[in-house]
Amino acid sequence: MMNSWISIPEQSDFSIYNIPFGIGSTGTTPFVCTRIGDQVLNLNTVAETGFFKDITTDLSVFSQRTLNPFIALGKSVTNQVRIAIQKTLTDENSPLKNQGDAFMPYEKVEMHLPVEIGDYTDFYSSIEHATNVGKMFRDPDNALLPNWRHLPVGYHGRASSIVVSGTPVHRPKGQTKPVDAENPVFGPTKRLDFELEMGFVIGKNTQIGDSVSTEQAEEYIFGMALFNDWSARDVQKWEYVPLGPFLAKSFASGMSPWIVTLEALDPFRVPGPAQEPEVLPYLQYTGEKNYDIHLEVIITPENGDENIVSKSNFKYMYWNMCQQLAHHTCNGCNVHIGDLMASGTISGKDQESLGSMLELTLGGKKPITLSNGESRSFIQDGDTVTLRGWCAKENLRVGFGEVYNKILPAKS
Amino acid sequence: MMNSWISIPEQSDFSIYNIPFGIGSTGTTPFVCTRIGDQVLNLNTVAETGFFKDITTDLSVFSQRTLNPFIALGKSVTNQVRIAIQKTLTDENSPLKNQGDAFMPYEKVEMHLPVEIGDYTDFYSSIEHATNVGKMFRDPDNALLPNWRHLPVGYHGRASSIVVSGTPVHRPKGQTKPVDAENPVFGPTKRLDFELEMGFVIGKNTQIGDSVSTEQAEEYIFGMALFNDWSARDVQKWEYVPLGPFLAKSFASGMSPWIVTLEALDPFRVPGPAQEPEVLPYLQYTGEKNYDIHLEVIITPENGDENIVSKSNFKYMYWNMCQQLAHHTCNGCNVHIGDLMASGTISGKDQESLGSMLELTLGGKKPITLSNGESRSFIQDGDTVTLRGWCAKENLRVGFGEVYNKILPAKS
Repeated sequence: MMNSWISIPEQSDFSIYNIPFGIGSTGTTPFVCTRIGDQVLNLNTVAETGFFKDITTDLSVFSQRTLNPFIALGKSVTNQVRIAIQKTLTDENSPLKNQGDAFMPYEKVEMHLPVEIGDYTDFYSSIEHATNVGKMFRDPDNALLPNWRHLPVGYHGRASSIVVSGTPVHRPKGQTKPVDAENPVFGPTKRLDFELEMGFVIGKNTQIGDSVSTEQAEEYIFGMALFNDWSARDVQKWEYVPLGPFLAKSFASGMSPWIVTLEALDPFRVPGPAQEPEVLPYLQYTGEKNYDIHLEVIITPENGDENIVSKSNFKYMYWNMCQQLAHHTCNGCNVHIGDLMASGTISGKDQESLGSMLELTLGGKKPITLSNGESRSFIQDGDTVTLRGWCAKENLRVGFGEVYNKILPAKS
Repeated sequence: MMNSWISIPEQSDFSIYNIPFGIGSTGTTPFVCTRIGDQVLNLNTVAETGFFKDITTDLSVFSQRTLNPFIALGKSVTNQVRIAIQKTLTDENSPLKNQGDAFMPYEKVEMHLPVEIGDYTDFYSSIEHATNVGKMFRDPDNALLPNWRHLPVGYHGRASSIVVSGTPVHRPKGQTKPVDAENPVFGPTKRLDFELEMGFVIGKNTQIGDSVSTEQAEEYIFGMALFNDWSARDVQKWEYVPLGPFLAKSFASGMSPWIVTLEALDPFRVPGPAQEPEVLPYLQYTGEKNYDIHLEVIITPENGDENIVSKSNFKYMYWNMCQQLAHHTCNGCNVHIGDLMASGTISGKDQESLGSMLELTLGGKKPITLSNGESRSFIQDGDTVTLRGWCAKENLRVGFGEVYNKILPAKS
């Protein structure tokens, strides 16, 4: 049990066991930072004192607008940085005790998108979600397509419109075809939805032609964040054949500001679900590759209270991150530091564990009731959707904080 | 008629009317350059003499690894640069006549990927191609899906694996399901194909929430290049439902090194095909938005001669670039300088104008015969596939050069 000389609220996601990385600013100059309890620690200020001099001489990485150059130092360096911070925050003789200017209350720090995302891929790796959506969009009797249990289905998403938590999102417009209409119409989506997802950030480059095995995969994964894959269901339904989702998703996706390292998540490994039929050799793996991460989705209507509408868990994922990365690179596709790979909607088996309104309300047919008496089939203007995620085990707690976006009316 | 004091071969793509932009190098330092006839003109060397001093003071853009900073100066500047080069190359008293060090034979210059591509989108805008593929992959009687004539169908592609012309490409491996097998298998693709495409490069940023109208679209298009969307058809067939092509495409795409500006293409505007039914107002446009660009696909077997296997034309496209960009941004999706938007395979009506082996050989059923007597259902190891494109009209010729990639055996 590690104890810090920093006061950390008991249920804080940002315990001494976490030490995530992000990009913050208080004025115009961004800096690499971590969070401990309710404090943000400016690692550029720490670096300037020579604190990391035995770990790296490249201090410029701590004053960049993204974590990419820091991540590029490699896990051997970034893990040492994390451990050095952990140690000094538990050391009663820490030099940081005299460095009050390095600490700031989290409310005073503006957090930015933590990485420059070159390419973003979205998987579809929850068997419960794929089954639920298949029933609604396609054939109730053959919800899962023939390839689903043989490979982690995924598609390329739009990287430019990934925004950090807190960024408001305008209701998107798009082309839809009402069921009773002969022709499509254009206007604001009527079926705006969230998708409860998590994403992992690539921590090491590959070259074109290289493949990463399931065994090597964790070397290439820097860490994870919460991810809301905002979706316009009516746009999606009309546009997605035959080449997949496009404008139904590309208007915005939300990402939490803190990247929690794979090393911080290590105590929370759990086995994944059995995979039947057996997968091809390049997708086989050994060890525990799933993580027990509690997840919640909250809808907060304008001037209303929080409503927890879903409680799910990352451990439900049928395909794990190592399999996703091995599949992604099995054709020689190269990955770059900062690339984001998201899980797809994380639904569980129970009604209360579904990760989208589409599933929670059966395509809008069974609206849910909020604490203020209002009902929701999909997300309305003025609503804020928040995703939260955390691991908890005995005295350990390591969390992701949250990603939230408020929905503003469509632009005129 | 403009005449240059540089000797330009009569059938050169790089006439005085072209003046495209690219990134070259002869040693380690890249530079912005243009091409005139068989000569590459180093614009950084030109800039250092003060030649562009009345156009821009930001000379650093001419010594970058990508065109993005140059493009970011805006069309008002980049068009002036193009015109200044055109003028001086036709001026018998040009100061460049004394600057032999700025010119190099094109064979001596290594050309690089011209832009840093943040996001890459691939459309599916040839009605002939969509019909041909729909017949083979889906239903011969309903080849064109209901949305196709209402919106330019597109999907997000992988930006990281776009390579410049000349880069060899290893045959990708992947998961496929042979028709007679119960379970999928993993190995090198047996159905490697090209796709004859062109792409346009975004020349101006938008913010999230902004939409670009068909009328404004040309302000946002810097120029065009040839694009080969390499495809593994057997991988595609098994993986693509329900979220679209993924690993079947992401192993590599080829791009020509020269970006031909929209202004250079202006004399070659032609009307597009009639669109029936009428499209929604946000997709309507006025004026001639298609371009008469002759296209060829060449297969060159190892130690063999060139075989022209397809002759197509960009003017066949049902959806034009302005409609594609208006659609892409109608939901507020932001675009960045350097983003690439490709056309999708450009097929014509005739057998000889089909833009993929899939179509040329009817899914491999009717192999084509090469001049050396060999036949091809799909592309074999050792084959080089080259795409060429040019506009020609009276005495004007403006061309794109070529994009070629040689196929190497799968990595072991």
